[in-house]
Amino acid sequence: MKAEIIAVGSELLTPDRIDTNSLFLTEELNKLGIEVLRKTIVGDNRELLAEAFRDALNRVSLVIASGGLGPTEDDLTRETVADLLGRRLQRSDKVVRAIEARFRSFKRDMPAVNLRQAMVPEGAEVLNNPRGTAPGLWLEDAGRMIALLPGPPRELKPLFLEEILPRLQRRVSGVRMVKRELRVTGLGESHVEERIRPIYTRYADVNTTILASPGEIQIHLRMWTEQSAHAETTLDEMIRNFELALGERIYAHSAESLEQVVAAILADNRATIAAAESCTGGLFAERLTRIPGSSNYFLGGVVCYSNELKTAWADVPPDLIAAKGAVSSEVAIALAEGIRRRAGSMLGVGITGVAGPGGGSEEKPVGTVHIALASLAGVKERLVHLPGDREMIRFHASQLALDMVRMHFLYQGNPQPRRVNPVT
Amino acid sequence: MKAEIIAVGSELLTPDRIDTNSLFLTEELNKLGIEVLRKTIVGDNRELLAEAFRDALNRVSLVIASGGLGPTEDDLTRETVADLLGRRLQRSDKVVRAIEARFRSFKRDMPAVNLRQAMVPEGAEVLNNPRGTAPGLWLEDAGRMIALLPGPPRELKPLFLEEILPRLQRRVSGVRMVKRELRVTGLGESHVEERIRPIYTRYADVNTTILASPGEIQIHLRMWTEQSAHAETTLDEMIRNFELALGERIYAHSAESLEQVVAAILADNRATIAAAESCTGGLFAERLTRIPGSSNYFLGGVVCYSNELKTAWADVPPDLIAAKGAVSSEVAIALAEGIRRRAGSMLGVGITGVAGPGGGSEEKPVGTVHIALASLAGVKERLVHLPGDREMIRFHASQLALDMVRMHFLYQGNPQPRRVNPVT
Repeated sequence: MKAEIIAVGSELLTPDRIDTNSLFLTEELNKLGIEVLRKTIVGDNRELLAEAFRDALNRVSLVIASGGLGPTEDDLTRETVADLLGRRLQRSDKVVRAIEARFRSFKRDMPAVNLRQAMVPEGAEVLNNPRGTAPGLWLEDAGRMIALLPGPPRELKPLFLEEILPRLQRRVSGVRMVKRELRVTGLGESHVEERIRPIYTRYADVNTTILASPGEIQIHLRMWTEQSAHAETTLDEMIRNFELALGERIYAHSAESLEQVVAAILADNRATIAAAESCTGGLFAERLTRIPGSSNYFLGGVVCYSNELKTAWADVPPDLIAAKGAVSSEVAIALAEGIRRRAGSMLGVGITGVAGPGGGSEEKPVGTVHIALASLAGVKERLVHLPGDREMIRFHASQLALDMVRMHFLYQGNPQPRRVNPVT
Repeated sequence: MKAEIIAVGSELLTPDRIDTNSLFLTEELNKLGIEVLRKTIVGDNRELLAEAFRDALNRVSLVIASGGLGPTEDDLTRETVADLLGRRLQRSDKVVRAIEARFRSFKRDMPAVNLRQAMVPEGAEVLNNPRGTAPGLWLEDAGRMIALLPGPPRELKPLFLEEILPRLQRRVSGVRMVKRELRVTGLGESHVEERIRPIYTRYADVNTTILASPGEIQIHLRMWTEQSAHAETTLDEMIRNFELALGERIYAHSAESLEQVVAAILADNRATIAAAESCTGGLFAERLTRIPGSSNYFLGGVVCYSNELKTAWADVPPDLIAAKGAVSSEVAIALAEGIRRRAGSMLGVGITGVAGPGGGSEEKPVGTVHIALASLAGVKERLVHLPGDREMIRFHASQLALDMVRMHFLYQGNPQPRRVNPVT
């Protein structure tokens, strides 16, 4: 089965807003083995909307549309689809009551304009939407299926999962999508490509996608098949080959961020950590504390931009800063050791560098970053030269610092980062 | 003139990647008074691609396509468009030489496959792309214009500005888009709507869009007109009315983030600031230090998750924490005053709260946040109850803290945040 997605709304044709619902819908459809053939974004215009639906229904048997179900005159999806299929719109008393109840729960009267949302094309199934006033609609016509869903993601997603997914599951063929994902850090895109190309070119039936961003590469493998057991075996075999090629550079086998992986490693090892940051300005601390439960392992951090505060808050000797400069291996190490001692944590991270755009010199150009990790076992330090703008340099530096923490535990005697022995 | 945008590439029909080039293209086209009628995203499939171009050329006189110009057999845009217009593809020696020169500059030989990128439809103008191997193409046919651009944003954007924009400028009518933008914080969407609806409904010729996210509302005003002077006057008048309705809740008159505005205020006032954060985990510091030059006003910050570090790093008395709890007005104030003293800054910010998902209680549910701002003039404190998940609560809390800094300077005697007297 093939599908098309139509996103309705003039705001989606401005520079301010982009359709993101289609990413969620594509993911869900792919899982069912349904391929998305085309996405169309069209404004609140009756004629253009009708044309988009007409064309899509000529190409595929499933059309999913988002938006245009609101109460105002700009919201034309209901009328357009009813018209196209030659069906009358009828007011549904059940929907009227549901909308009235929703307004009552907020202690407000239902504005008369909301009655538009109770208009239902003949023969359509009404999909109850407890999170908003616009119900979804499901129509079948000459073997084709049409789902009309509200635009706000927090309404669309549950409505799809609760109402559309079960309807599709009953109808799809035996084809399913089987997928795997690997996440890699500490290698550039061309190096990853060089290492894995000899592998993935041998699997012509597997769709391999490589997505690169600063400090991280994602590898997505997808197979559409009726024989999932065979596909699972094939993909597992491929993953093992990737593991041989990429080794410890793989940090996750699923859609996890590096901070999630490092947080889990710290928690599993009952380790505690603290950080003294200069050029990353708190980004390392912020990323680790995004994770729920981070207070169990993240004791605290300091952002010491000024030299005085590097001394006052992380005991970096003023003489050292004077002799080596604030951006130096020595100061990174002193930050890591100082914050570890002051926080009383098992690990201490120190980051100092030039994030730009100003502050660079010939000797220490923009992108020069020193990262140190102190532990009971001693201290490690790295110097890197990072490309890109301030935002990229800061993110990449925080990524490298997180990866140093991951590598620290990887080499505590066990090659699997998630199954290491508690640090003693 | 109306335009359509076609984004080409099967990867854009997966859950992993979204077309963002169209936002840039829309912005640029809108400035010329060109409206975008539809966006289509289509995979690397000859037949579907041909249909997308054919339909678009039937509807509008300008079609801009991105992607599908690479060297592999998946890259079909050149062939498809040549075919559709009944033009032959010819190898351009000039393009071959440009691609060879590019590879030479990397000290590599040009793979034979790249010769595909030198194939040019008869009569097409080649658009030199120094940032990649795929040149852009410009075609005119029966009064219609077609621009074919490479997919990577860092190639597409300059190529559009250097090559497409001048061609369009010569052809467009006198219609231009005139726009204004306001950014508001500290008011919910429905309250903003309530205050400005009586205004914008009186300007039927102005397109008003309200975009809401946690802690921030954007108001976009757009007019398409041949009389820009009149439009400028109309929009200025509207803005003055919005200013009366929203007052100090407007934090910017352009696409600036709150941290940019606060950074500028701090710099203008030669003020210095430091922060002690608990639930925001460094986000306040991270946002302020995103801005180039932040070392001029941001002295430093601490993230003190544990009670011990609240005491050790910001002098919060242990008795106070025991008596009032770590999430309390008193502790927020102690954090702000403590960090101000320790950093030697003019301002000190303290943030403590429950970001969730765990840690809430009946008395202090998830979303309870205390924010304090200490200065020479004394200390201010706010208690808020924020909705949403951990990420939303943390962002919203950092937004409120930034806004307290903005408001502090707003009331130093001058109602314009950007033109206040230096703090003494």
